[in-house]
Amino acid sequence: MTSSSPASPPAFPEPSAPPRPLGPKADKDTVRRHNLSLVLRAVHDEGEITRAQVAARVGLTRAAVSSLVEQLLEGGFLAESGKTFSGQAGRPGTVLKVARTGVAGLGIEINIDYVTVCVVDLGGTDRVRLTEHLDNRDVPPADVLHRAARIAVRATESAAEQQLRLVGVQLALPGLVSGGTVRQAPNLGWNRVAVEGLLAQALAALLPGRRALPVGADNEANLAALAELWCGGPGAPRSFLYLSGEVGVGGALVVEGQLLRGAHGFAGEIGHVVARADGPPCRCGAHGCLEQYAGQLALLRNAGIDENAGVSGVALLERRAAAGAPDALAALHTAGEHLGIVLSGVVNMLDPEAVVLGGIYRGLAPWLAPVVEDELAARVVSDLWAVGSGRLRASSLAGDAARGAASLVVREVLADPVAYAEAR
Amino acid sequence: MTSSSPASPPAFPEPSAPPRPLGPKADKDTVRRHNLSLVLRAVHDEGEITRAQVAARVGLTRAAVSSLVEQLLEGGFLAESGKTFSGQAGRPGTVLKVARTGVAGLGIEINIDYVTVCVVDLGGTDRVRLTEHLDNRDVPPADVLHRAARIAVRATESAAEQQLRLVGVQLALPGLVSGGTVRQAPNLGWNRVAVEGLLAQALAALLPGRRALPVGADNEANLAALAELWCGGPGAPRSFLYLSGEVGVGGALVVEGQLLRGAHGFAGEIGHVVARADGPPCRCGAHGCLEQYAGQLALLRNAGIDENAGVSGVALLERRAAAGAPDALAALHTAGEHLGIVLSGVVNMLDPEAVVLGGIYRGLAPWLAPVVEDELAARVVSDLWAVGSGRLRASSLAGDAARGAASLVVREVLADPVAYAEAR
Repeated sequence: MTSSSPASPPAFPEPSAPPRPLGPKADKDTVRRHNLSLVLRAVHDEGEITRAQVAARVGLTRAAVSSLVEQLLEGGFLAESGKTFSGQAGRPGTVLKVARTGVAGLGIEINIDYVTVCVVDLGGTDRVRLTEHLDNRDVPPADVLHRAARIAVRATESAAEQQLRLVGVQLALPGLVSGGTVRQAPNLGWNRVAVEGLLAQALAALLPGRRALPVGADNEANLAALAELWCGGPGAPRSFLYLSGEVGVGGALVVEGQLLRGAHGFAGEIGHVVARADGPPCRCGAHGCLEQYAGQLALLRNAGIDENAGVSGVALLERRAAAGAPDALAALHTAGEHLGIVLSGVVNMLDPEAVVLGGIYRGLAPWLAPVVEDELAARVVSDLWAVGSGRLRASSLAGDAARGAASLVVREVLADPVAYAEAR
Repeated sequence: MTSSSPASPPAFPEPSAPPRPLGPKADKDTVRRHNLSLVLRAVHDEGEITRAQVAARVGLTRAAVSSLVEQLLEGGFLAESGKTFSGQAGRPGTVLKVARTGVAGLGIEINIDYVTVCVVDLGGTDRVRLTEHLDNRDVPPADVLHRAARIAVRATESAAEQQLRLVGVQLALPGLVSGGTVRQAPNLGWNRVAVEGLLAQALAALLPGRRALPVGADNEANLAALAELWCGGPGAPRSFLYLSGEVGVGGALVVEGQLLRGAHGFAGEIGHVVARADGPPCRCGAHGCLEQYAGQLALLRNAGIDENAGVSGVALLERRAAAGAPDALAALHTAGEHLGIVLSGVVNMLDPEAVVLGGIYRGLAPWLAPVVEDELAARVVSDLWAVGSGRLRASSLAGDAARGAASLVVREVLADPVAYAEAR
């Protein structure tokens, strides 16, 4: 119902695209494709595993698993580690792992004052990362996407040097995204921008003659929340509200491991939830939105720092707060108070397991979290949010929509590896 | 993860309960139970249907369907309408419908100033309804549940006269409900009240020697939202936010036909979402909750009506507003403005298809809705909520948690009729 996935047909011609090995035709093919995915995901989830262990885990015979593993080895999705494992009866088994070369996903986050590009391999490891701090406000969208494409091409070259083959691109953007289009992104000043098509064109212009990559687009907070879910480690909650503090304040709700996207893909606009009904005007046209108290510009301005100082401004705010500067502490207190007012409403309404502070809030959590916790304790009806409950936490990753975007491409490969097999 | 369902084992002894016909044992039994439910639901959803049409709809052979229909007729779940239908090739078929006698569900809504009991038959029709207006505030919970049980017994007698056999009881309550217990219900003044057990005891005391009925409990707004979903007619949305205006203001979010209950079953507490951070104190302990502007007491008080006048006070408010009384119109304007402030935040966060005004808001919608619509148009980021979008609507039923509760019992029967077959 929202953004197209990287596996969807690309929105631009593929000059030299070979036919894909298998379409969804015969039942037998469908079953084999499904089982190839099952086996690949078993290896992915376990890290290292023998064929016999895969068979036990997925409920197929060892012969069937061996045949599937053979195809995945040939396709470059799996590798044998060289180790053998003889802990169980029978012949010692060779240990399988996902390939560190071959297919990989490209994620691009375009935010207000930076662009980050990242390449994630099939094992979920971040293999290339490029960030450029530049002001994207009120720049024509095609120009911003062209800049992003240039950074992506550099990342592609780094990936190629590591024998990684990109199979899809996912864009992360701060705004309402659906059907490949940014419907509204007030902080960028974008309205109805067909980002998937524009990025595809920019990439095609920079990489003439290369097979075009399918491009998808989604909201940045959604993708950062998925990064937290998938890469946040074993303690990561499965139902949580993710907050992405940037110039805009994005939100995403994950319910039992699934993003809640809303009826039109527009859920999560927490930055424009009312904190004070009669507060200052916001770029969205309303008054007193959370962003006017807890967005990056408000935080810097209230702390007496140039609001357009970007990442260095945020670093300065952290240093000043650590040194006990009253302006910095007051700005963080105001932000925390209004975050707490809005979050208490969201928690009363949605009852998440946890709230995760991402983006710039991750580094600012030592000052924000105590204030937010007090508001939550005072305003949430259930007693689950008492101070010290541990339900408010800083994100485990440096709030990373680009990594979530690249990981989404990789998830598509895990779900149907045959569709991404290299033509030989 | 939340309240136990009516089909779960009752929390009290069943003195004369016969063994249930079938436990989940052999695979063959499981398949047959599943198919019995499929056939029953096909008849339920279509209203009138022949065996041949059932077979076509569910994908079973006519012979299999005939055998399943036979069992459902014997169990009293289906009836033959007497009509025959010969629109298709082959023998004319007898038309099936769900039985108007036999199994039925009992729903009890305990709210701040009333108790409603209702009996719904297998076809979803409301067959008995009893409402008593009485003040339940600061009355010992056991006493309130005993009152409710007495009303339920009267409804049971009316049901028996109509040859209806109750198979489960579902309670609707204004508060946080999980595991058969009201965790908190600030407006009732209840904390950690084991409502399922208390109601079961009260019913057992009033109906000695009768087989005890399984009792479940859930939040009233959740159950009213389910009533809207199931009984709201063909135009009813499948993803919506339901608002239940009473002394408290309850909320429930339905996403693609499913209630979003939250990680602990506490989602939907919209009455305690902050409308004005520094507003008046609320019974929940916080300040400026929506309830302080748009709850029934605030509405009546602001209109110059006795806040404890209950249903007659609300009727008076409607009459005064219709007559153009300035106090009444001002009170409704204040309520609409604050409903709009809070709803705009919820819509920005959750992107529902529609917002449904239920409870007392249904009758007050002519005055509330225009004000709420203006706030939504001004504050929601997406342009889907412009004035005149039709996304804000009054509920199609007189906000009916009791009917939703009784319907939930009926849904359990539809899902596994064998578990509710009468011992013969």
